[in-house]
Amino acid sequence: MNEPVLSRLQQLMTIREGVENLGQPGRWHPAADWVDSGTHLLLLLDVPGVNLDSLALEEQGNTVTVSGERAAPEYVLSAERPSGTFSRALHFPQDVLPQTGQATVKNGVLTVQFEKKHPTIDVICQPDAGEEV
Amino acid sequence: MNEPVLSRLQQLMTIREGVENLGQPGRWHPAADWVDSGTHLLLLLDVPGVNLDSLALEEQGNTVTVSGERAAPEYVLSAERPSGTFSRALHFPQDVLPQTGQATVKNGVLTVQFEKKHPTIDVICQPDAGEEV
Repeated sequence: MNEPVLSRLQQLMTIREGVENLGQPGRWHPAADWVDSGTHLLLLLDVPGVNLDSLALEEQGNTVTVSGERAAPEYVLSAERPSGTFSRALHFPQDVLPQTGQATVKNGVLTVQFEKKHPTIDVICQPDAGEEV
Repeated sequence: MNEPVLSRLQQLMTIREGVENLGQPGRWHPAADWVDSGTHLLLLLDVPGVNLDSLALEEQGNTVTVSGERAAPEYVLSAERPSGTFSRALHFPQDVLPQTGQATVKNGVLTVQFEKKHPTIDVICQPDAGEEV
């Protein structure tokens, strides 16, 4: 699939998530990026203030699902920051090797790194050894 | 001012910020909460992945302005996470003592704590010492 199609697919999944979450006002929807690092595919997700113990990742076919929770502060005078549980199903924009995901959280950003599947085997050009006389 | 009026005022400031930022597509708009902790007023702002050196706070009258920046990742396949510079002007929902702000960042959440202004002086009841005979 080319990138515009993948981008449209992700938009559709995002809209579906939005519709599914309409009846669940506690849910929120952290923003995600997909990055191609060459050998790996990276998923970046904004999870500021999320309880690290609550973070869960599940890989199923072409999709990785990330869920977690953050508590709402007490005695709030005005609130824009969403809280409660979230769950996002994100479609891999490129093929990855199953069960290679590695997750870290730094400064409120979750990074999950997946090994990309390379359908071709690289040919390495070695210098000719030269014929011995 | 009562809380609905303050909430409306904050909404109006947020809309104004949105209009001002329309012509600056690089700008984003981190979500903010105001919390009353009893003795202090707390501002919470989601700043995941923001370069801590770029964070700046300025207090002016009834308003605190927070600005900062985060870099966009390279080689992005799909991007939802906003990046670039941000600047938010937030109205104090309660009176605070000037120049008492203290800021910390933890797990991608900026917390700024201000001492509240108490217009009344508390009367502390001390036990009667009893008259000496």
